[in-house]
Parts: sequence; C-alpha cells; structure tokens
Amino acid sequence: MATTSPFRADLLSDTLTRPSEAMRDAMARAEVGDDVFGEDPTLRALEERVAGMLGHEAALFTPSGSMANQLGVRLHVKPGEELIGDSLAHVVRAELGAAAVLSGISSRTWVSERGRFRADDAASLMITGVGPYQVCTSLVIVENTHNFGGGTVQSLDEIRRARAVTRDRGVAMHLDGARLFNAHVASGVPVGDYGREFDTVSICLSKGLGAPVGSVLVGSDEAMAESRIWRKRFGGGMRQAGILAAAGLFALDHNVDRLADDHARARRAAVAVAEAAPASVDLATIETNIVIVDVASVGWTAAAFVDAALAAGVRTYAVGPGAVRLVWHLDVDDAGTDAAIDVLTGLLRTPPTA
Amino acid sequence: MATTSPFRADLLSDTLTRPSEAMRDAMARAEVGDDVFGEDPTLRALEERVAGMLGHEAALFTPSGSMANQLGVRLHVKPGEELIGDSLAHVVRAELGAAAVLSGISSRTWVSERGRFRADDAASLMITGVGPYQVCTSLVIVENTHNFGGGTVQSLDEIRRARAVTRDRGVAMHLDGARLFNAHVASGVPVGDYGREFDTVSICLSKGLGAPVGSVLVGSDEAMAESRIWRKRFGGGMRQAGILAAAGLFALDHNVDRLADDHARARRAAVAVAEAAPASVDLATIETNIVIVDVASVGWTAAAFVDAALAAGVRTYAVGPGAVRLVWHLDVDDAGTDAAIDVLTGLLRTPPTA
Amino acid sequence: MATTSPFRADLLSDTLTRPSEAMRDAMARAEVGDDVFGEDPTLRALEERVAGMLGHEAALFTPSGSMANQLGVRLHVKPGEELIGDSLAHVVRAELGAAAVLSGISSRTWVSERGRFRADDAASLMITGVGPYQVCTSLVIVENTHNFGGGTVQSLDEIRRARAVTRDRGVAMHLDGARLFNAHVASGVPVGDYGREFDTVSICLSKGLGAPVGSVLVGSDEAMAESRIWRKRFGGGMRQAGILAAAGLFALDHNVDRLADDHARARRAAVAVAEAAPASVDLATIETNIVIVDVASVGWTAAAFVDAALAAGVRTYAVGPGAVRLVWHLDVDDAGTDAAIDVLTGLLRTPPTA
Amino acid sequence: MATTSPFRADLLSDTLTRPSEAMRDAMARAEVGDDVFGEDPTLRALEERVAGMLGHEAALFTPSGSMANQLGVRLHVKPGEELIGDSLAHVVRAELGAAAVLSGISSRTWVSERGRFRADDAASLMITGVGPYQVCTSLVIVENTHNFGGGTVQSLDEIRRARAVTRDRGVAMHLDGARLFNAHVASGVPVGDYGREFDTVSICLSKGLGAPVGSVLVGSDEAMAESRIWRKRFGGGMRQAGILAAAGLFALDHNVDRLADDHARARRAAVAVAEAAPASVDLATIETNIVIVDVASVGWTAAAFVDAALAAGVRTYAVGPGAVRLVWHLDVDDAGTDAAIDVLTGLLRTPPTA
Repeated sequence: MATTSPFRADLLSDTLTRPSEAMRDAMARAEVGDDVFGEDPTLRALEERVAGMLGHEAALFTPSGSMANQLGVRLHVKPGEELIGDSLAHVVRAELGAAAVLSGISSRTWVSERGRFRADDAASLMITGVGPYQVCTSLVIVENTHNFGGGTVQSLDEIRRARAVTRDRGVAMHLDGARLFNAHVASGVPVGDYGREFDTVSICLSKGLGAPVGSVLVGSDEAMAESRIWRKRFGGGMRQAGILAAAGLFALDHNVDRLADDHARARRAAVAVAEAAPASVDLATIETNIVIVDVASVGWTAAAFVDAALAAGVRTYAVGPGAVRLVWHLDVDDAGTDAAIDVLTGLLRTPPTA
Repeated sequence: MATTSPFRADLLSDTLTRPSEAMRDAMARAEVGDDVFGEDPTLRALEERVAGMLGHEAALFTPSGSMANQLGVRLHVKPGEELIGDSLAHVVRAELGAAAVLSGISSRTWVSERGRFRADDAASLMITGVGPYQVCTSLVIVENTHNFGGGTVQSLDEIRRARAVTRDRGVAMHLDGARLFNAHVASGVPVGDYGREFDTVSICLSKGLGAPVGSVLVGSDEAMAESRIWRKRFGGGMRQAGILAAAGLFALDHNVDRLADDHARARRAAVAVAEAAPASVDLATIETNIVIVDVASVGWTAAAFVDAALAAGVRTYAVGPGAVRLVWHLDVDDAGTDAAIDVLTGLLRTPPTA
Repeated sequence: MATTSPFRADLLSDTLTRPSEAMRDAMARAEVGDDVFGEDPTLRALEERVAGMLGHEAALFTPSGSMANQLGVRLHVKPGEELIGDSLAHVVRAELGAAAVLSGISSRTWVSERGRFRADDAASLMITGVGPYQVCTSLVIVENTHNFGGGTVQSLDEIRRARAVTRDRGVAMHLDGARLFNAHVASGVPVGDYGREFDTVSICLSKGLGAPVGSVLVGSDEAMAESRIWRKRFGGGMRQAGILAAAGLFALDHNVDRLADDHARARRAAVAVAEAAPASVDLATIETNIVIVDVASVGWTAAAFVDAALAAGVRTYAVGPGAVRLVWHLDVDDAGTDAAIDVLTGLLRTPPTA
Repeated sequence: MATTSPFRADLLSDTLTRPSEAMRDAMARAEVGDDVFGEDPTLRALEERVAGMLGHEAALFTPSGSMANQLGVRLHVKPGEELIGDSLAHVVRAELGAAAVLSGISSRTWVSERGRFRADDAASLMITGVGPYQVCTSLVIVENTHNFGGGTVQSLDEIRRARAVTRDRGVAMHLDGARLFNAHVASGVPVGDYGREFDTVSICLSKGLGAPVGSVLVGSDEAMAESRIWRKRFGGGMRQAGILAAAGLFALDHNVDRLADDHARARRAAVAVAEAAPASVDLATIETNIVIVDVASVGWTAAAFVDAALAAGVRTYAVGPGAVRLVWHLDVDDAGTDAAIDVLTGLLRTPPTA
C-alpha cells in the first residue's frame, strides 16, 4: 500500500510520485522474462509503444533518465568530440559530468534565458569543418521542458530551424525529454512531432507520469542495438524488468492528459504568489508544472524560506541563494495546493526582519 | 501472474528466475519513497539487512550486479592503477571492459584452474612499491562461487592467506558475490565470514535468490556514501525502488536455504550425465548449481548439442566450442530435472555421426 | 642550417618559428641526462628558472602546450567535476576534447567578446555547494593572451576579482599562458604578477619565443611531482630533453623583449589594412601580434582570400567563413611585413566581382 | 658538449645514452618546419625511412615509446574491448595503466616464462564470437626483445603461428619494438620480417640507438593519419621536431650494427658473474644486452646489492626483491664493462653476513 506523504504538500520534485494502487496492481500482474536475453514481453511492449509514439524505430528501457541521456549522447559523439547545449541543461549540469567520464565527451555551452532554446545560439557555437586540430561539434542537445529553466516549453519552430542547420553541417540532435509530456500537454504539439526532429530522444516515466522507476531512449534500430550493449556496460542491464515496464505502460494509459491538472495548479499557486509578492514571480514564465519564486525580492534567503515552509508542512527546493522552486505532480491535489498557497503566501507577506 | 516457461527445463542461467506470486505480493504492498533523496524505507531496510549479514557498515542497492562490482572496484583503484584477478573472472571477462571505460582501471590476470582462487597466484602478480613508473596493484578481486569456473566454491583459507598479503602490501580486496549464497549453502560458511575478509562485497538478488532486479554492494559508511554519488553518475539512481527492494527482502527470507535443492538437482543430473558419458563430466567439480558438460568428449560440438537439446525442450548454454553449461535455479523443479536428464543423457548417448 | 621560408611572409602562426643559428648552437652544447630519472641538468635549470619567473615552487617541461594545459587542469578537477571558461578558449576549443578523454573532465562555457575575461561571467556560471547530484565547478581557466580572441590581453584586475570569488568558493584557477610573454610585453605587467594569481600556469617556448619544441607547467612542488607521473602516463616522458631545454633557456634570454617588434609590425600592418578597408579591422582590438581581418566586409570569402594571398607569397589562416588571421613572429621582419601589407591591402582593394 | 657520466659503469638502463658529438652536429644542422602542419622535412624523412624498414606504409614520430604504443593499441581496440599479452609486458606493466585511462581499453594477461611469447598462450586467452555481453579480444601485444623478461628475443615462428590464429579470428597484433633492433642484431632476422607480421609496430630511437628523444609508430596510411590526430589529443604534437628526427636518422645510420658490441659485453659480464656465483645467472637466458642477476641466491637483497654496487661506482637496478638488472648500451665500453665485472663479482663473492 502506498505511503501517505508526511507533508501537507510536497513540492520538492515531480520525481517523488508514488505508484497508485491501480499501478501497483498492473505491476503485480505483469508477465516477465529475462530482458538481458531480450525475453521480457512487457518490456518489449513498452519499448515498442514509446518508439511508436515518438516516431522512431526502436526503444530501450533504462533505470534512470541520466542513463537514457548518456546512452543517447554517446551514440553521436566519439571520444574527443563535443556536444553543445545551454549552460543549464540537465545533461551538462545535473548528470555529474557523466558524458566526460563515461564517454570522453567534451562540451561547450551558451548562456540562455530560462533555458529557452534558440537555434542561433547553437549555430554560432558549432564548430565543423575547420580541420583536424579543433574540437568537432557532433551533437546539439535540447531539453523540453527545461527543468532548471523553470519548466520552459521549447518552440518547435526553433527546433526545426536548428535541425536545418545541423542537417547541413552533419551534426546530430538529442532531445532530453524527461518532461516531454508536460511540453506536449502545455503546447498541444504531439510528442511525435517533437520526437521526429531528433536523432534520439529520452523520456522519463518516473517524474510526472508517476511510475516508480525508468526512462526510455528511442532512436534507430541500429542505434538501440548498440545502446543495449552499452547499457550493459554502464551497469543498466536488468533482468525481469517487466515489473517496472508494466508501471510505465499504465502511466502512458492514465497519467499523460492529467498533467494539465498539475499545470493548472501550478498556475493557480503562481497567481496567488504574485498577488502576495508581485516582484517574486513573473506569471509569463509559468508554462507547465514548475514555479520559481524569487523570495529574495521580499527579503528572504532561499534557505530560510525553505526551512520555514517545511516547518509549516510544505516542502520546496532552493535552486539559488534567493530562488525557491515549486513543482506540481500527481501526489499534490487541490487541497495540497490550497495548503501550499496558504503557507507560501503567508511567508512571502511576512519576511524575517533583518 | 507469472508466465509459464516455454521450456521443459530452462537451464540457460539462474538469472531467468521469475518472481513468485508471494514475492509479487510483497512488491505490490511495499512502502516506497524517492531513493535518490534517500527516502525509500523498504530500500533502506534491505540495505541495512544486507550490510549486517555481510559484516559491513553500509550497503547500496544497484540495478545490476555489474554496477555493484564496478562501483566496488572503483573505490579502491584510481585511474591508471590496476586490479588483478583470474582470467575468467566476471569482472574482467563479462562486464564489457567497464572498469577501463568507466574508471580508467587497468587489469592483469593469471590463468586459473576452473576459477579456483589461490593466494599465491595473486601474490606473485602483485606490483607494489617499485616506484612511480610501473603500474600499481591496488585491488585483488575474488569471485565466489565462480561462474565461468563452473560454480566453484572458494576456500576461506586461501582468501585469508591472500588477505594477510594484501594487508601488508596496502592492496584492497573486493568479492564478487553474485552467487555468494550458493557458496554459503554449499560450504556452510556464514556469508559474513566471507564478507568480513573483503573491503567491499557485491551480492545479487536476481540470480538464485529469485528477485526480478537488483544487486547490493556493501562496505564502509564512507565508501557507500561515495558510491551513492557514483551510482548516480553511472545512471543507476532509481526513484521508488522500494518495489524492487521488497522482492529482495522476500528473497532473503525465503530463497536462501532452498539453494540446497538446486545443488542437489544439479548433482543428480551430473551423476546421470556421468553415467551416460563418463568422460563428459568430472563429478568432483560439481560444487553448487552449475554443471559443465564436455560434450566434445562424445563427439558433439557445443553449438549442435545446444540446438538439439533446445529442440527437445531443454535450454542450455555453450560456454566453449565443446562445452555446455547447465544451471539450476528455483524455476527448475524435480520434474524439470528429470526431463533434462532424459534429454541430455539421450543426446550424449547418440552423438551425431561424422 | 635553418631553412629559408618559401613565403615572402608567413603569417600562418607563431608556432612556425625556426631555431636561429645561435639557438641551435646552444642546443648542440647542452649538457644532458635522462629526465625520466630526473637527471637532465639543463632541463632542471629551465624548470627552476620558469618556476621562479612565474612565482611558483616548481615546474615541469612538456612536449606541447596542450600537454602542459592538460596536466594542469587534471590537477584541479576530478573525473566528473567540471572546468569553466570562455567558449573560444584553447583548452576547450583546440585541444581536441582532451580534458574529457584523458581526465573525464566536464566543461561548460560562456560566450565572450573576443575572449575578454570578465570575473562576472565566471562567477555566474560557477556551481558550488548545491549538493552531490549537480556537477561541481572545480576550475576556472583563463587564456592570456587569447588566441582565438585575436591576441587579447587580459586585465589583471579582472583576474584578481575572479581570484577573490574562486578563493571563497574553493575553486582553482589555471592560466593558459601560451602567449603570456606577449601579454607581459604589451601590458608591462611582470609575468610573475599574472602567475601568482593562479594555482597553475602553462607557458609555451615554441611560439613567439622561437624554441623548436616545448612548454612548461608551473605549480606547487606537490602538484608538479604528481604531474611528472601523469606526464609519463600521457606519453610525455622524454629522455635527454636537455637538448630542447637549452633552446628554451636561450629563448628566455634573447626572445622575450623582442616580442615588442612583432606587436609593432602587427599594428603597422593593421593600420595599413584599416586604411585600405576601414570596415575590415578595428584598430582598438590589435593588442599584440595577432590581427584578424574581416575580409567579408569587402566581399571576400576567407577561403578565397587566403588562397589569393598565398598565390602572392603571403600565408594567412581562415578563422571563420569571412575572417582571416595574421600572426607576427620572429621569422617575419620589416621586409616581410612590407610584403604582407602590399599583398593584403591590394587584395582588400580589389575583391572578386560576384 | 656531452657530460661525462659520474659512474664507472652506468648499467641502470639503455635509456641513459647521451647523444654523441657527431649526432649533436647532425641535429644542429637539421632542416626543420612545423610538424603539426606536416612541414618538417627531416621528420618526414625519418618517418618514411622507418616505415620502409618495417614494411609498412606510413610512420609517426612520438615523444616517447609509451605514446607510440598507446597510439598503436588504441587503433585496434575500442573502448570496452580488450588487449591481451603476457603479464610482464611493458604496455600493461610499465605504462601506468595508460591504455585504460586514455582509451578505455581492458586487458587480460597470461603468466609467461621470462616474457617468452607463445602463440598457444594467446590463443587460449582470446575471446571472440561469444555474443555481445562478454569482453571482446581485439588485440594481441608482443614485446621484442622483452624488457622485464631480461632481453628475451621472440621467435618469428611463434609470432607467425599467432598471426595465423588472430587473422582467422579477426584480432589485430601490435609489436612493442622498443628494442626490436636488439632482437634483429641477436637473431639475424631483418626488422621488416618481424614488422610485416603486425598491424602496427613501435620502435624506440632513444634506447640502444642513442638518440636523445623519440619513438616511431608504423602502420597503414589510414592508421597513421588517425594517429596523428590522436597524438595531438594526447599532447604529443611537437613543432620543429626535425631537430630530434635528425638524431634518429643518425642513429639508424650509425648505431644499429654496433648493438652487437652491447650484447657481447653483456655476455662477457654474465659469464664472469656465473663464474663468481653460478646460481645467480643462467647463461642460456642472456640473449641481448640485458642481464638479470639473482643476487638472493648468494644472500644479498636486491636493494642492498644495488646500493653497494653504486657505492663502488656501478649503477644497477632492482627488478624484484632479490633480482638486479644490468643493461648494456653505447655509453658503456670495454673499460666500463671491466669495472662492472670487477665490482659485481666482488660483491657476489662477499655477501653480507646475516
């Protein structure tokens, strides 16, 4: 049975979602086999389904989104070549330098506004065709929605513009789609429309979608066959993983459209926060399920604000010395949102006296 | 509900075991949290229990035995230093060169007899204290039981002899205990007696113990804290992994002692095989749940034998041009063993005519 | 005897300098020993001298500037941690991703104006103290003068400002001083004043200084002892390298102050170019021995311009689709400069008709 | 002017050789250019000559033998694949784990007798064609003569036998020919006959041949073009390296045949040692310029013996707790050999009393 959260509202991250009773039931009934030998029918069903949704030939299940991304980027970038992306991208900021460690991949970045992807930024950083002694750009990464940017939805037009440039210059593109379904629900763009613009895409089942464990990488048949071997080398070869895949299939059936509720609750909270402290949040930046509050604008440090909110039963996350992040997900309902609004606006109205 | 195997006896590997109804039930009821934040109570319970069993301070759950081993070896060997072990060890033979790729670890090996560990082999290969320009041996690995050696149980005396040498020379020791419970059941040595001789130990829950996914690494508090970060870097950070840990706890409760049944069935089959083809198996080498049959001794190639057995409903594995491996596990019962004996002895008695 | 260049003026790079008769004589008379055993007296003399000049305890000779930089950065950044710098820095742009390949070092960059270092850019990109799961910034790199920036001299004030921030946050600083003597001659700042602000510094003997081979890394005694071992691991351990060190000592004695001549000639040529094609060069950006000409401003492509100049005996280098780089060094005298001015201004005044 | 050695006989290593006056003269007169741009005529001449001698298409100059070997092995072994060789081979024992660090190359070894290469040892360790989840053997390395084996000359027949097996199984072969000219002079086999059996070969100019710095790798045109880029990535791209190449050309002209003198002196010393202490050396093992003396057989530790010999002006090297290595080279003449014999036999006859 699922644990009840000890918090009135746990806005720490959408990775916290716990499997529902129905999802657990699906897991308990899953048909399984040894996936290292390719014999898990539930896993195969999940991989085929995700590949189809994203417009690619094949897919590969992984124990984490980091592994899905890292398997993706190494397909395109040989040791000593580079990937480029924005300086806040999860791949370069929050995967512990794995691309360099695991695959000898160098990286350069540009500074973006809230993670917003612009084709021109990528084009101007790219190095191709200048002889053997300079680093060679082999891959552009895009993150959609953008986590550290605050849930930013990327423009399909910008992606397509970048694709035109990269195609000309022989550079691949990888989509970190850990929250791609949030982008889809917010923008109405089918996930396949995003997916088809990239050579590889990762998606995550254990964030907003609510499955306990797992991500999926998609790409060509050949790329996935190679990645299957590298997944084993990275230590991600699991046996009867159909148990986890069953949760993923359940999530795709039941938990995609409901992301709209998370977005609505996030916006409702942001509106309340903006009323309480107008300088602390720019409503134009609330695009999905993430709200970043500039608590310094009313005199809080992020650390003190997070502590005070926690003491009142609302868990949040300091993403900078004066910025606090709130993330909505399926384990935060309307009542939890009400509680969070109550606590957070209260704190914003009564900053500590210096 | 668990799938029925399509084979009369599936002796391919003990990684094939499917979770039982009772194990699935335990998984469905597991209390979970986000383990990346250290908040999964079931996972914590599993880690504490395994650490205690093996006589170490702390433990870390991983999605695979390879990852547990690779996290273990990198603790002891800096980039450019080396580990040594026997040439058939899983770490150097069957983890796809991961130690070199992930951690820049060099390796040298000695040739053993069926994976049998001897302290003298390790001592004579070790390089320490000869100045900065030769490779430095930082780690000795031991595998117990030894997979490619045919389920060989290692001598605690030899391990202790090696420990005395390595302690003097400042060299660490890691135990690949993927089948350590088989060694324990066969030898009567408590797993903690083995465990305490090593700096780190990995054990596997998804082989003979029957859990669907997962291994556990044990070591000091400090080593496990560092490994937790590297597990994330390797892409092994999972979220609500308590689902899997519940299966592991169930396995430790119910599936350890019963490994004796697997050993008895393996021996019964080996005796039958030896009657049918005396040169094909040396009964003195049958120590646990693995039987290696020299089918070449009666005129079969391994590939042809494997195919013929499969056609008769018995799945086996070619481990060399003339050698076939049979592995017993909890999804092969007495009836399956009878069927296997029937098929395999039949084939051994009627080799193809050249 | 030194070869005569086949060009009227070879402005391709200052790496082209050939050893003079006097320098060759110094090499031929050098006392040598086996430096892998630390027994080369001339090499030791060079290392001590460079360490002293730059205000550090010890130094290490390397076969290339890339190796000096790569040994420097790995001292400060563990596998999985990161260095940050501007996106045009030689370390991330022109060393073939070596930091990632050799040392598992991740990198993020900011976009600069002509390589100009600003402490704020570094400070805002730095990630420290945010928990174990984000990449950790361990090093800031600065390049002085900045090669791809066009010979930009860095401000000692900005460097000191960055040093104050990095000291607070536990981040190291490495100076890529391949052309540090150019910065010194242009700014009047003693090389030691630059050097003392950094944990490690590399300088190059084979660019403007005119030695045939070699760079030097400086740092603490401990850091250099560690780097000596890693130099061997990287394949840079040379035997009787005193032959090369003798050239380096000669260069420090005779070729530092004369860099002012290169700067004067570069400026004279830039002035002439600006007269011929005012939009093609901004005289405010000519700080040392490098001139970047925007040939596209008058209708040339860089490739066509380089070819046309070469046909007229002047070798130059395309650094972008419309930009051509000219580099002065000790093998380009006043006559060569006159010839270059003649050819280049002629071409700029008569662009190809489209 | 060359330094006079402070020792009566310096038998530490043949890496100690100092360039003669004539060699220095050749260096001082060398025509040079920037080899990173491929414009050094003396370097090109050396590379063409060595490629031709060894029966290969192309060659590449490197600052060290380690770099030549490491560039060679990485051509054949992708990250995660393995090389195999004997456990005393320089590549796995004395290059500081570089293959793992620089190229993610795993390794397994067999234990040999004095480094003697036997095709059967290689064949039985090789793993090919057993599916994607075991390490794949991509390269066999052979060292000729074998340094830690004591100057062992490898059998061309055994090499050819191994070549037949590796060709069948798609495995490459690399020859570490740091002392290949010693093997040639001892066996009479042309270096090209050895060379043609391998995909790549490294040779060293700065050991017995007496040049101050440099090794050369040979292989196909394509392999050398790729290695040229990787040499830059490894930090081995040098500028006017023709200075060093001139010494190499001189060495090939003047110092190959004279290796016979080193061999004769080594044998003369070994005979004298065997007379003084018959159990300390097996004359059958003295094949080239290296003599390993079992000083423990008469009651010395290697460390004490080395110290005592040094005090008497003879420098030697402890290669094990009871074994001392003596190496002859062009800076040890007949008089030096006489002195060494005098000192060493004296010590062997008067071991310390315990």
